[in-house]
Amino acid sequence: MKPADMLPVAIGSRRPGVTGAVGRVWLVGAGPGDPELITVKGRRLLATADAVVHDRLVGAALLDLVPSGTLRIDVGKAGHGDAVPQRETNALLVRLARAGLSVVRLKGGDPFIFGRGGEEAIALRAAGIPFEIVPGVSAGLAGPAYAGIPVTHRGLARSVAFVTGHEDPAAGGPSIDWAAVGHLDTVVVFMAGRTAPEIAARLLAAGRAPETAAALVLDASLASQEVRLTDLATLAERGAGETAGRPALLVVGAVVALAGELGWFSEPLVGETVRAGVEAAPR
Amino acid sequence: MKPADMLPVAIGSRRPGVTGAVGRVWLVGAGPGDPELITVKGRRLLATADAVVHDRLVGAALLDLVPSGTLRIDVGKAGHGDAVPQRETNALLVRLARAGLSVVRLKGGDPFIFGRGGEEAIALRAAGIPFEIVPGVSAGLAGPAYAGIPVTHRGLARSVAFVTGHEDPAAGGPSIDWAAVGHLDTVVVFMAGRTAPEIAARLLAAGRAPETAAALVLDASLASQEVRLTDLATLAERGAGETAGRPALLVVGAVVALAGELGWFSEPLVGETVRAGVEAAPR
Repeated sequence: MKPADMLPVAIGSRRPGVTGAVGRVWLVGAGPGDPELITVKGRRLLATADAVVHDRLVGAALLDLVPSGTLRIDVGKAGHGDAVPQRETNALLVRLARAGLSVVRLKGGDPFIFGRGGEEAIALRAAGIPFEIVPGVSAGLAGPAYAGIPVTHRGLARSVAFVTGHEDPAAGGPSIDWAAVGHLDTVVVFMAGRTAPEIAARLLAAGRAPETAAALVLDASLASQEVRLTDLATLAERGAGETAGRPALLVVGAVVALAGELGWFSEPLVGETVRAGVEAAPR
Repeated sequence: MKPADMLPVAIGSRRPGVTGAVGRVWLVGAGPGDPELITVKGRRLLATADAVVHDRLVGAALLDLVPSGTLRIDVGKAGHGDAVPQRETNALLVRLARAGLSVVRLKGGDPFIFGRGGEEAIALRAAGIPFEIVPGVSAGLAGPAYAGIPVTHRGLARSVAFVTGHEDPAAGGPSIDWAAVGHLDTVVVFMAGRTAPEIAARLLAAGRAPETAAALVLDASLASQEVRLTDLATLAERGAGETAGRPALLVVGAVVALAGELGWFSEPLVGETVRAGVEAAPR
């Protein structure tokens, strides 16, 4: 049974007194992983909402903050492709709000950068449901920060590009202009686990120097965090090792060289270590 | 008297028992303005630190969370140029930590994007002071979100550039490649109050269409928030009105057109309204 089909029953049995008045939806950024990196507003809403609709990337520690009486629905997106199609999630939010519930839509990172929050907001607006956006700490900033990489830095980087490594041709619209992206000082690529070597090749083709520092950050801000330091040429030729479906962020640019000095959360794997790891890893 | 000179006395008189053990510094992002948009971790640290060193952009409501017994030092950066030079702030953090204090360095937005947190981290590392980064919600994401603009959106935007409108020639290093920046789907410019028309002209010169939607977001996430919707050509020719030193973020791209539909926090000023406002404003 699909969650959207199941809801009227669940809601009806749970809150029989709630009818008539329309609810409200908060699109809430959960932050990068560490449950303490949600905002104070986000945590307050989690504790008071009638329903929480969440993604797979939202960690168990954060969901533990949801009171036991709260309706909790997992519409988890598994890596590439949705567990629940986006239009069903949109419909679910509308139905929950129409049942008079206050709904937290909890999304990994920030809802408005590579989070498809805009689509949900449009669906809510079209249905006349009041909504609010509660921004979150984006993994695109927290990942580098936890690796000791400032994405801008005096004398090294004045411009940053955020792009996704997972291009969905079905989405239509513009494709990524890698030649232009490659000319920004720092490049941060979301969902780069499988495509990092290909992206490195595109940045090289755009004229980026082969020795440009690159880092792959896995499980940013979690105890399992891993930072692999390499360079564009090595990354393009040999990859950066197995990522096994873990959230992976690629960071490229002169600022990445600061990670060796400024890494504070986990010990980065550097140079030959990465290469050895790569060569030992299944390809 | 400079804060850095003053400290040994202040510290000595305040915490006579603390000697020997070195302290620790947390570089904490305060978020975009609304005090509830700080992270749970950031708020916890504010409540427990021995000292809080903060910028001008950090609002009074957030500083109200600092207990009255905590040493509080304002190194406020006024608009363009520092109230306290960066090297003095660096030295201050080192001295406070060497006195054994736990120090929160509270910075508007996120410390590692246009926040000069990297310079402070380098100074701390060089002095052997342990530090941590606590990422914050960047104004570069929260500003668009509070204006109803998703910076990426299926079919409209797959790449985002973050740049600063305040180029400091003394900093050396790369200057912004506006031609490349203009080829990313969405462009977000920090500190754009004075330079928005000039930046619009550069994006037009890079080949961006004159009718490309643009928004100037002032005081993002605060009650005084103002969103001015315009287009690149109008912005380049007539500007977007007086900003009077308020934090100003420029957002450019097809996604900006969603603000009319998705604006949820403040009523945007659109088209002729903006032009009328611009024409009425002092130039």
